Amino acid sequence: MQQNGGDENPITFFPIGTIHSPFHDIAGMPIQPNGARGERGTVEIADRFAGGLKDLDGFARIILIYSFHKCTGHDLHVKPFLDPAHRGIFATRSPRRPNAIGLSVVRLVSVNGSTLVVDDVDVLDGTPLLDIKPYVPAFDAYPDSCCGWLESVAKNAESVRSDGRFR
Amino acid sequence: MQQNGGDENPITFFPIGTIHSPFHDIAGMPIQPNGARGERGTVEIADRFAGGLKDLDGFARIILIYSFHKCTGHDLHVKPFLDPAHRGIFATRSPRRPNAIGLSVVRLVSVNGSTLVVDDVDVLDGTPLLDIKPYVPAFDAYPDSCCGWLESVAKNAESVRSDGRFR
Repeated sequence: MQQNGGDENPITFFPIGTIHSPFHDIAGMPIQPNGARGERGTVEIADRFAGGLKDLDGFARIILIYSFHKCTGHDLHVKPFLDPAHRGIFATRSPRRPNAIGLSVVRLVSVNGSTLVVDDVDVLDGTPLLDIKPYVPAFDAYPDSCCGWLESVAKNAESVRSDGRFR
Repeated sequence: MQQNGGDENPITFFPIGTIHSPFHDIAGMPIQPNGARGERGTVEIADRFAGGLKDLDGFARIILIYSFHKCTGHDLHVKPFLDPAHRGIFATRSPRRPNAIGLSVVRLVSVNGSTLVVDDVDVLDGTPLLDIKPYVPAFDAYPDSCCGWLESVAKNAESVRSDGRFR
């Protein structure tokens, strides 16, 4: 799958595993982890990478980096789920990005061999996983950071569900 | 550049721009943005994607997703800068990952056409940028999240600098 047709040097990654979730259709999904409280999923890591999960079980949350594999193409301006205006793609979390890379901070429930059980999963079932990073408040948590057009509407992600606009 | 030699379907991305910083060598760098306070950099977006920066200027912080382009290969267990023990790669932020994807939350100072000025940049000069996402506390900030082996040492990233171990 080739993204965005750029003319610079391509960078190729391979899935290290697969994310499983209760969500089988791109429409009707939670749009962020804060709209997916209690939604349980699993992350299956390819056997050859399972050794890299050592020490992960002490972390309450992990960052999943994955491919929005059902999105093709991109738009520079999109109408997000949370706003009627068109916004620049890099000012949104829309999946139809020049590089369709997704990022979700989820709760880590348990690590069993090469399987992670996670909560608050807002990811489509079958999604190819690219990386896992430990969530570290000193590196990642800025609770008072001003957030532009999302300032007044981000909390609405707790209840808004996706439609099919980003297929 | 091909990562990790996996046998699943490859996923190819293209740089959307380049990150510039004061750091020209992989050794002697800040290891996280909290060790890079006040370090100023710029992000140059390719002209054809600059339209996607609309509305970004209202955000105090952005998430940069990039390629650790000077790292080749990976280790499943690494000795991080902050700890004498070997840790599973997915429980660390080490750059020698199966997919060498980096993530930094930086301060957005200004947006000028296709150039972003950013502070707290802990990224090597010349790094290929893959994506920009707006940092949204409701989606991304969990200040009390427990963080395993990093719980007692994460704050040391304010002063520890890298050496050449992850070349």
